Formats: sequence, structure tokens, C-alpha cells
Amino acid sequence: MSNNLLAGKRGIIFGALNENSIAWKVAQQAVKQGAKITLTNAPIALRMGEMNKLAAECNAEIIAADVTSMDDLKNLFEKSMEILGGKIDFVLHSIGMSVNVRKGKAYTDQNYTFTHKGWDVSAGSFHKVMQVLYKKDAMSEWGSIVALTYMAAQRVFPDYNDMADNKAYLESIARSFGYFFGRDKKVRVNTISQSPTPTTAGQGVKGFDGFIAYAEKMSPLGNATALDCANYTIAMFSDLTKRVTLQNLYNDGGFSNMGVSDGVMEKFVNEDA
Amino acid sequence: MSNNLLAGKRGIIFGALNENSIAWKVAQQAVKQGAKITLTNAPIALRMGEMNKLAAECNAEIIAADVTSMDDLKNLFEKSMEILGGKIDFVLHSIGMSVNVRKGKAYTDQNYTFTHKGWDVSAGSFHKVMQVLYKKDAMSEWGSIVALTYMAAQRVFPDYNDMADNKAYLESIARSFGYFFGRDKKVRVNTISQSPTPTTAGQGVKGFDGFIAYAEKMSPLGNATALDCANYTIAMFSDLTKRVTLQNLYNDGGFSNMGVSDGVMEKFVNEDA
Amino acid sequence: MSNNLLAGKRGIIFGALNENSIAWKVAQQAVKQGAKITLTNAPIALRMGEMNKLAAECNAEIIAADVTSMDDLKNLFEKSMEILGGKIDFVLHSIGMSVNVRKGKAYTDQNYTFTHKGWDVSAGSFHKVMQVLYKKDAMSEWGSIVALTYMAAQRVFPDYNDMADNKAYLESIARSFGYFFGRDKKVRVNTISQSPTPTTAGQGVKGFDGFIAYAEKMSPLGNATALDCANYTIAMFSDLTKRVTLQNLYNDGGFSNMGVSDGVMEKFVNEDA
Amino acid sequence: MSNNLLAGKRGIIFGALNENSIAWKVAQQAVKQGAKITLTNAPIALRMGEMNKLAAECNAEIIAADVTSMDDLKNLFEKSMEILGGKIDFVLHSIGMSVNVRKGKAYTDQNYTFTHKGWDVSAGSFHKVMQVLYKKDAMSEWGSIVALTYMAAQRVFPDYNDMADNKAYLESIARSFGYFFGRDKKVRVNTISQSPTPTTAGQGVKGFDGFIAYAEKMSPLGNATALDCANYTIAMFSDLTKRVTLQNLYNDGGFSNMGVSDGVMEKFVNEDA
Repeated sequence: MSNNLLAGKRGIIFGALNENSIAWKVAQQAVKQGAKITLTNAPIALRMGEMNKLAAECNAEIIAADVTSMDDLKNLFEKSMEILGGKIDFVLHSIGMSVNVRKGKAYTDQNYTFTHKGWDVSAGSFHKVMQVLYKKDAMSEWGSIVALTYMAAQRVFPDYNDMADNKAYLESIARSFGYFFGRDKKVRVNTISQSPTPTTAGQGVKGFDGFIAYAEKMSPLGNATALDCANYTIAMFSDLTKRVTLQNLYNDGGFSNMGVSDGVMEKFVNEDA
Repeated sequence: MSNNLLAGKRGIIFGALNENSIAWKVAQQAVKQGAKITLTNAPIALRMGEMNKLAAECNAEIIAADVTSMDDLKNLFEKSMEILGGKIDFVLHSIGMSVNVRKGKAYTDQNYTFTHKGWDVSAGSFHKVMQVLYKKDAMSEWGSIVALTYMAAQRVFPDYNDMADNKAYLESIARSFGYFFGRDKKVRVNTISQSPTPTTAGQGVKGFDGFIAYAEKMSPLGNATALDCANYTIAMFSDLTKRVTLQNLYNDGGFSNMGVSDGVMEKFVNEDA
Repeated sequence: MSNNLLAGKRGIIFGALNENSIAWKVAQQAVKQGAKITLTNAPIALRMGEMNKLAAECNAEIIAADVTSMDDLKNLFEKSMEILGGKIDFVLHSIGMSVNVRKGKAYTDQNYTFTHKGWDVSAGSFHKVMQVLYKKDAMSEWGSIVALTYMAAQRVFPDYNDMADNKAYLESIARSFGYFFGRDKKVRVNTISQSPTPTTAGQGVKGFDGFIAYAEKMSPLGNATALDCANYTIAMFSDLTKRVTLQNLYNDGGFSNMGVSDGVMEKFVNEDA
Repeated sequence: MSNNLLAGKRGIIFGALNENSIAWKVAQQAVKQGAKITLTNAPIALRMGEMNKLAAECNAEIIAADVTSMDDLKNLFEKSMEILGGKIDFVLHSIGMSVNVRKGKAYTDQNYTFTHKGWDVSAGSFHKVMQVLYKKDAMSEWGSIVALTYMAAQRVFPDYNDMADNKAYLESIARSFGYFFGRDKKVRVNTISQSPTPTTAGQGVKGFDGFIAYAEKMSPLGNATALDCANYTIAMFSDLTKRVTLQNLYNDGGFSNMGVSDGVMEKFVNEDA
């Protein structure tokens, strides 16, 4: 659908890797809705991914940036403003990875060098992105910053490992920095907490397919897809949500407010028979 | 703004009274976005209000309904489907009143006949609306139901009186009924928790002006206006938010996640001087 | 265990019916911890139950009271203060019933006379209890009021029916009235949100055994028992928790903060095999 | 008060610095309640503090440990078990500091070396403590681990700076590790979220006195003191709360569930006059 919701707006999308990425869909939808964007990811991800395809489709330039490097972020925002012709109206932060998960370390057997690395990339990067934007005064008034997160920040999902703690830290940054960005620059900052989604990152989590099935059965409207998430993100970038800030918004078919569903209960009732 | 976000959709708006009403703004915005709607309110409210003006502007019929009467609700939904030409895509519930507040009864000195009446109109009505819609199978798949609420459901605002408890009950209905409406009809149900807004109802609350000033100082983006609320409601009616359900969504400039702001603190720092 | 935690304290226990009742265990533990108490329940419950046994064990008088009757509540508190020799230090509200559940009415097919009755008994009664205590100035300073609740107030448990909404209302009353009781009388008001427990009331819920098994598998420490709940309630009545108020406290083996456990996931992983 | 609530239990208290420390009060109360304990803090804190006084009063040995060092933690737990004569029943984590706060760096102008250090000491240390305890199987069944936290983890308190994010991470660790500790060892893990308290650490926060006054006015029972917190912690260490886990428990006179109090509103009503 295209409703020109983002006509005239300028945005930066972090974290598109391939067609399964939520960030990929957000980029596509943002452009359909009339926005001009730049795309960014880590140099290594750019080599692995298929970003050129997306860039061509979106008529967007790719600017490589290590999201933990202040210099890279400064360069990214300067170039983006130059290319897009003005201050930034919206930013998507869709970045996360756990070295402990990748290396098969259990939550109770963390390697703290890995823990630190994951925290720095997945959570600390969100502060760095905002600190550079804030100091450069690079966001337009009533601009919108969104980071993607997961409900493991609130509740236990054993296989999500230290990403749970990273997401809790990320969501706290959204509130903490959101206060200053709102007060000083009239910019809103929110997180969207998405259903488990079969992205490249998601599929790295142990037992992911079973988990997708469980979440589907628990959610009255089923799991939200990557496209659903992109659409919600567009709503959060648009002027329809100008006074929504510091929020963590669930896009999950209702999962977050379920105690149990009939579908899940069936498995336990049969057992009693 | 008009983006045809609701093109082809049919809706019912409860609770518009006059230009200050949030429901009034929702009606206007929904029509601007391409929807066809009917308007409804209690017979007595229709006599007091200026609904004909809104109806003319929105090219909408007014159907009187006592929201606590199952017969009135059945008639309302039947007529609406007839007039609009099909099942309903969205419904706004914007109804609330406390007889205890009106009669000046403190929260610690309730008249329980008043308490019952307020609960029935403000909260029970939301269940009745949905029960009739559900049984009649009157909602389209992927339709959206929104009720307006206030954060007194979560935290204490002393002058909000028994409306706090009514809103807690209302929000619980949204989750409880939202499960069945999602599972069986693919309809989403959410509440929007709005900043204090100088509507006719809001202004009935004791010390409302001081409270507006406090909330303004506490909220990094300031209080959300009735128009902000209408815009957010449009986003929730649109296809941008298809998998968002059972949620309570704050539209409040960030108030809900503030512990204290610099603006509020100033009052307490000066005191120490 | 007995630690004289409630030595010299006077209390009133609502809602003991038989040995399975949580209120029954609270009465026993309170007396073991040195308190003097009175017991109360509805006349009809007194006829059905085995309260005389408990009264004898606890050396406590039974005072019949319809909890929706202001006159009965006034009589109860006057007599209790007379018998116990002074103002009341602690009160347990353990009352709840849904006529819709009893009569087999689905949540989407409520009989609103039943709904009203259940709300009045299960939730409204808590306000009445506190309003009478407050107006009579019948609570000691630093006294403690606890009501039992269930997590259906926050999340969907489909078979819990309209009790979910009643519990949401009850918890809101705890906050709303807790503010005035704290400010004016230094009395704290909290709710304890307990694991599903095989009491007479619990067992009335459809599919209760399967649900108990599910909750057990989800909770890292397993379901909290009635005795666990009584112990936690004693802690809330004791001077160990003097500044804890307006809180909803989960006693549930961790269930409330679980997204999924390994035990629950197994059911969904096997399915995929 | 002394009720032998912790008779026969063995505990370790982190973070006592001087008489104003909450950990200091917890140590005193734990011993009064019959427990045997060891005390620990960083070598530098031991030099600054007056720990010998507390150690003498509590008949407890002091074991220096840098809480970020796995070797120090291993040594601490081994020695403690040796001294106390068996596995550990309770642990208090009361550790937090922000280098950014100390060095006067604003939240929007973080030095990320400082941020990392504060995160490591304040939040990461809690994981390390539990990982060592878990791997060593050093906790008794039904043991209890408590960490102190602050509500800045949920809501914005601008001067709390990056400690807000650290506390969010800490609380997430409590849930994440609490799951495994509960499932595998029957140990509970909770955090207590305390009123602002005039400890040495608290007083380092900008505008702390004004903030104490604000919180006092907002809380229906006033701010919880360090002794109140110690008492609540004792309840959480005792067998009264065996099935309470993964929780964040507010000990704050009701602050956390207040939207506004009459006392705070007065400041804004007067302004209008």
C-alpha cells in the first residue's frame, strides 16, 4: 500500500541484511510511502548481504558504518544529510547479535568478553547513534527514532540468552535518551517489540522453529510478520504518532498479554487424559 | 492530512459530544482518510450536543443508542451495516462518566448506586458493544476496535475517583474480549491511554487545570492533544497495525514512563533554597 | 514455623471455607505467629463450610457478614474490635465468584445480571470493606490490608471468564483506596497474585487440572501452594514490610515473568519432529 | 525486632560501606534474626569504609573481592562456605556506581569507557556472582538471592544518568538467571526497588535533596528508609517467601504506582492562582 505517509521525509535504515530482514522491509515501505533514505550496515555485513539489490530498488545510497565507532557514525550522519538534503526525520535501529549464542555458550556459562561485545553492538550502539545525532543536532523537530526489540527484555525465553539483557538495556536507553531528545529537540524515541520472526538473526536461536509454532498458537492473531513490523514502523515514523514517545510497543498478535491460549492448553489437557 | 488510509472502510464512532471531544476529531479524521461512518451517542447527549454539525460535515447518520441497552446496540449495528453497506471495519468507544464525581462524592465516601451506574456506563458498555458485534458477526476480518482510557487505570490520580477503577475494568475487557475476537474473527482490540485533555468530561475533574499544567511539565513532548489522539486512532484503524492487539497504548508525550522531569523537579529544588 | 511475627496484632480473615482455602491457612499461620483474629464469611458459606473447626483451632469467633452489605460490615468491624480489644492491624480479603462461570456462560455470551453480581461480590466488596474501615477509623497505624488476586487481571486466561475483569477492578481499588488509606491513616494496601491453587473456587474453573499442570511446567520453582501464600501474607501483615503499599505481588514460582520454559517448549519441539 | 527468621542460615552481604549503607542494615538485621554471615566489598571500599566496626558487631569475617574478578568471587564463595560451615542460603548484591556521574558527564555526552566500567561493576557483576555460585553449586536449595535496584530502570529520572540503564540490565539478569537458578537449584532471585535513600552513593546524584523531598511528597507512606529496606530483604531471605522469584519488588511507600499525589499537585495549583 502507498499513502504518501512519509512524503518529503528523510530517513536512515540500519541493519538490512537480506530479504528476510525486517529492516529490508522497512526500507521498502518507507520509500513506497514517499521517503528518501540511506542504508547502512557493518562493512562485513555489506560483504555478506545483498544490499545492492535493495539500494537499487530504493534508489538509496549505502554508507558503511561500524555502529560501535563514533567516527563512523559521524560520517554516516553527515553524508546522509548531504545526500538527502537536510536533517533526518526518521531512523531505524535494527541491530543485535550475541557472541555467546553464536559460540554456543549457555547463559549460565558466559564468556564475559563475548558478553561485553554483544552488549556493545546490540545495546550500546543505540546510545551512540543517538548521542551523535543529538550532538550534531541532526534530527528534524518531530522526528522519530525506532529500535527493534524483543519481549525477552521483560520475560524469560531461555534460549534468547544474553540478548534478553541487551534488549532490556536497549529499551532503557530508549526511555533515558528519549527524555532528552524529546525535551530538547522534540524528537520521539520508541521501541517495537516484535513477534519471533524468521530472519537470519532469529534463526540462529536454538529451537527457533518450535518457538515460532508455540508463539503462533499463543497469539490470538498469530505471529506478526516482518511486513507487519515494517508497516507498524511506518506508522511510528509518520505524523500520525507525533506525541508517542518513550514507549515499548508490542507488535505480536497479542502474545505479550496472553497467560495461556486454548491452543496451548490443549497440549496439557490431552496429557491428563 | 489525508492519505486515504481508511479508504473503503466502514466505522462507528461512539461518544462525540462537541468540538472538544476526542471522538469528534476521530470522526473528522476518519472521514478525511476515506472512511464512511455512523455516529452514535445517548439520546440525552444528542440533545445537549452539537452532533448535527458533525454529522453534516462527515456526511454521516446519527443513530441514538443507550450504550447499556442490548436492544439499542443491536439496532445501532444493524442500521449501521445497512447504511454503510456491509460489515464494520472499525469502532471507537469513547464513553465514560462517574456519578460519584458529578455528585461530589469522595473516593472514600462512595455512594454504591452511583458507583454501579458509572461502572455500567463507562466499562460494562464496552463488553456489551463487543458482545453484540461478536454475536452478530458484524465485524470484518482484520477490523479494529479502540476504546479510550486513562492511565489512572495503572497509577493513582486522586481526583480521578472511581473512573480509575472503571478504566482498569475497561482495559481488562479489551484483553479478555480481544482474545476471543482475535481468535475467532481476526479482529483486534486495543485501548489508547491519552494525556489529560480539556474535553467536557475532563474539565469535570477537580483541579483539572493544575493537573494539565503538571502533566505538561512532566511530559518530554508535552501533552497529546485531541487531534494527536485522533491521528493515533486512525493509525490503529488502518492496515498499518494489523497484528497489534490486546494492547494499551499511551499517547501522552512520554508521561507514562517518566519518574520525574527537570521541570517538575524545579519546584522542589527551589523549595529547599 | 512460628516467629511471633504478629505478636499482639489483631486481624480479620474473610473467606475461609474449608481446609483447602488459602484464607484457612492464613488464619492458622496468623494465630501461630501470635495474632488474635476473628473469622468471617457469608451466612450461606458458613452453613456449607467447616468453619467451626477452624474457629476452635484458632480460638477465634466467627461473625457472619454479607460482604456487599454495609450494615453487616459495620457490625463485623465493631464486634471484631470489641472482641479483639482494639483497632485492627490486618485484614485479608479472599473473596471471589463469578455467576457466569457457575452457570456455564461463556465470556462472549455474558448474562449481565450475573456479571453485575460477580463484580459486586468479588471486587466491589473490597471497596466496601475499606470504606467502612476508613470511616470508622478502625485500622491501627501501620496496619496492613491484603486482597488475593490472580494474574488474569493482567493477561488472558480464557477460562477465567469475567473474574479476570473483576480482579483488574479489585487491584485498581487496592491502588486507589491504598493512596487515601496510606496518606490519612498510614495503612498499607496490597494484593497478592497467587499461582492457580486447587481450592474449592479454583476447581470450579474449566480445565483446571490441565491448567495446574501447565503452570507447574512454566514456573521455575513450581506452583506456589496455599501454605506458601499464607506465609507470604504473614510477611505482608508483619512489620517487615511497613513501607510496601499499592503493590500487586506475585507469589507464583516465577510464572508471571516467564515467556516460555524449557518444559513447555518440549511439547512444541516434539510436535515438529 | 528479632524473630529468629534466619536461624541457622548462612549469608553473604556485598556492598556495606558505612552506617548509611542499606547493606550495613541488612547485615545487622540478618545477624539479629539468627544468621551467620560474611561481609565483602572491593579492597578500595574496605580502606575507605568502617567495615571493621560492622564485622565486630556482626561477628563476621570480611573477605575482600573485586566483584568483576571471577577469581576473587571464587575465593569469596569458597572461604565463605568454609567459615560459615556449609552452602550459602542468602546473598545480597548492593553494588552500583556510574563513572559518568562521578565525572560529571551528562547522559547525552557519555564517555563510553566510563559507561562500560559502570555497566561492568553495577550490572555485569550480578551475573558473575550468580555464575560462580551456580557453577560451584554453592547455594542451598530454597536459598534466596536479592539485588538492590532503583525504579529508574522503568521510568525516567534524568539525573540518574546511565545507572538507569545499568539497573534495567541488572533486573533482566535477575529474571534470566533466576530461571536457571530456580529450575536447576530451587534458588530464588529477586530485586528490591527502593525509595531514594540518603546513602553515600545516593547523595552523589545531582539534586538529591530536592528529589528526596519530591519522592516523600509523592509517596502515600513516605519514603522507605534503609532500615525498612533491610527488613523487607530479611523477609525475602526468610522461608516466608519461598516461591517468590523473578520479581522486582518496590519498597517505596507507594511511589511506583502514583500518577500524582495531592501534595505534589499543590505546587501546580498554587501556580495557577
